[in-house]
Amino acid sequence: MLYVKNLSDVQMLIREKFAGVQMPAELIMLDEALDRVLAEDVAFTEYIPAFDRSTVDGYALKGSDVFGCSDAMPAILKMVGEALMGKHTEIVLQAGQCVSVPTGGEIPQGADAVVMLEDTEDFGDGTIGVRKPCAPGANLIFRGDDGKPGGGIYKKGKRIHAVDIGTLAALGLTILPVRKKPRVVIISSGDELVNADDPLTLGTVRDVNGPMLKAAAQEHGASTRFYGIVKDDQLSLERAVRQAIRDCDILVLSGGTSAGVKDSIPETIAKLGDLYVHGVAVKPGKPTIFGQIEKIPVFGLPGNPVAAYFMFLLLVKPLLDSMLGAEPDEKQSVFSLACAVSSNQGREDIVPVIIEGEQVYPIIGKSGLITTLAGADGYFRIARDREGLKKGEPVEVILFKE
Amino acid sequence: MLYVKNLSDVQMLIREKFAGVQMPAELIMLDEALDRVLAEDVAFTEYIPAFDRSTVDGYALKGSDVFGCSDAMPAILKMVGEALMGKHTEIVLQAGQCVSVPTGGEIPQGADAVVMLEDTEDFGDGTIGVRKPCAPGANLIFRGDDGKPGGGIYKKGKRIHAVDIGTLAALGLTILPVRKKPRVVIISSGDELVNADDPLTLGTVRDVNGPMLKAAAQEHGASTRFYGIVKDDQLSLERAVRQAIRDCDILVLSGGTSAGVKDSIPETIAKLGDLYVHGVAVKPGKPTIFGQIEKIPVFGLPGNPVAAYFMFLLLVKPLLDSMLGAEPDEKQSVFSLACAVSSNQGREDIVPVIIEGEQVYPIIGKSGLITTLAGADGYFRIARDREGLKKGEPVEVILFKE
Repeated sequence: MLYVKNLSDVQMLIREKFAGVQMPAELIMLDEALDRVLAEDVAFTEYIPAFDRSTVDGYALKGSDVFGCSDAMPAILKMVGEALMGKHTEIVLQAGQCVSVPTGGEIPQGADAVVMLEDTEDFGDGTIGVRKPCAPGANLIFRGDDGKPGGGIYKKGKRIHAVDIGTLAALGLTILPVRKKPRVVIISSGDELVNADDPLTLGTVRDVNGPMLKAAAQEHGASTRFYGIVKDDQLSLERAVRQAIRDCDILVLSGGTSAGVKDSIPETIAKLGDLYVHGVAVKPGKPTIFGQIEKIPVFGLPGNPVAAYFMFLLLVKPLLDSMLGAEPDEKQSVFSLACAVSSNQGREDIVPVIIEGEQVYPIIGKSGLITTLAGADGYFRIARDREGLKKGEPVEVILFKE
Repeated sequence: MLYVKNLSDVQMLIREKFAGVQMPAELIMLDEALDRVLAEDVAFTEYIPAFDRSTVDGYALKGSDVFGCSDAMPAILKMVGEALMGKHTEIVLQAGQCVSVPTGGEIPQGADAVVMLEDTEDFGDGTIGVRKPCAPGANLIFRGDDGKPGGGIYKKGKRIHAVDIGTLAALGLTILPVRKKPRVVIISSGDELVNADDPLTLGTVRDVNGPMLKAAAQEHGASTRFYGIVKDDQLSLERAVRQAIRDCDILVLSGGTSAGVKDSIPETIAKLGDLYVHGVAVKPGKPTIFGQIEKIPVFGLPGNPVAAYFMFLLLVKPLLDSMLGAEPDEKQSVFSLACAVSSNQGREDIVPVIIEGEQVYPIIGKSGLITTLAGADGYFRIARDREGLKKGEPVEVILFKE
């Protein structure tokens, strides 16, 4: 029998052991920055925008010149010039004057507001009638409204999405320091396993975990290598592990389900390094292994693909986040349980769900069927001390990544 | 003045005009399939698993042989062999017999249940004592439990996530038909724009929309090309558009904010094809343009980056989904509004929000500041006929993609 640990204790242990391990920074082009994690704080080094800009087509003027004007009694201003798009204007506006400005154009010195074109009339004699009063600041973005030198915008650890690419472009940051992607090596092991493109003979099954865990690690910010299926003997496994350790930041072994693998994975870790965890009080996922070889965290995930996927999300993914110095990017939402779910005291349960409206339906299947997850939208956890959940109880669902 | 259309009318128009346009299929390796969209239904062509498998280490037996056994009165069975991992066994089990099986191993013909090792005792004389009754089917996955020939698993249009990679591997599908990525060409235009790595002179601003819209299209399943900043004259724009049209499935022009561009984009579309929409009753996003040139949908998005981003999500993204034949992958969730928000009747409002617990805080900023979106988690819409929303009202938030 395994000496099992609580899931949350194992999560804490992983955090403690590898809290200090962070990927080094590398410089990349902004064009390649989508989904990467900032390695340094980003602050403004200049005024954005660099000049007072109009947000409409109209006339830049002094608000005090048009105070109290109306349709019946327009204010008459002298048009003294035109601000051109993308050009600096040297005009300095005096009382009683206005300057034509396009949306986005620089307003001249001395102006403090812009009146919209549709609220004016061009009398054709070099004067403009303004029919609507205009408070100082109206229809303007002031120099530095988007940011001032020294003002912070992003903290390190920020994941870069499309809008951030826009903001970083606005700052002129075309070369960015981001965290290197953790290198995750995945090894499948088990005598019953064959590759997905190998012929299937009776008694063998295709390796599901190798391709699945590779995709999952990739989806969560890692660069990945799949070492393939290693035969289930201590020597083959040890050779593969020794090689992988020199080539990765996290090593993920996935046991087949054979009795031999169950032993050879923990034995290999114990021989080459330290075995910390051998069994977790969680369903599915009990035969989960965690240790360390030469500073590299090593996971032994269950052969059952549903268990392997959940243990990846609950143990490996948080470590990836922490190595990237990134906040977890999980989306959680509370739903009402559409039917009662039973649970055993003494272990935590991980329950995949389908979301329908504001309700979730638990997916209860036989252990080890990969199709269990094919339609799932996310999962929730049932605490170790609960015997089950009632219909209608609120549950906090962690949504799968889209 | 623009003749403005309702946002939902524009969305419907785009759907109608391009409902029949779908990307052709291409074959890719399973290894490259993450985030791609299936072009055909996927069904099982064989039994998965191909044989009855044990889910525990133990003994395969006939349930009827151990009915009523207990610690005090174990059932005694003759062990007639061992099922080996990954090997087919020729043994046919008779009454009173059992066979040792590992987790994941094939159980022999004649057996209908597996008893766990810990509920048995090996008497060392070729007989096994079973201390716990075992219903037929216990601790077994039957042939075909994960899938039977002809059984459906994925519909075309399914987006492939990490767990699906696992399922597809289980089916032996290493080469997959997926929809080709729509090719999106992005062109920025405006005399005030310079590239993010160009020197900034007074009156100019860096192009935000080009890099941002490229990243957004990429994030939503497109392959993208940025044609750069085109000078704001009809001739340059027309030349760039004529070239782009031959090279893309969707063309996205992003007006600078200059008065010239406002005219030259719709004029170019009208000259080379059909201009359908010139103005949408939405804030932000009013100066949005939509048309068609030689079967290619053409968008003219506002220069204001916040408006451009929302109009991308609300108009271009649904078209990408439809060309991929994919269901929208937006995640929506209902939150309570943390403070009142005003709105004008006669136009729809798009309000970016920050989520805190079960509440959302609207981000109210000056129009056109890209930093408005830097911390946003999603957005909600205020219908055209509403004058505003009260504090505490429930709002349906569309979450930004992580």
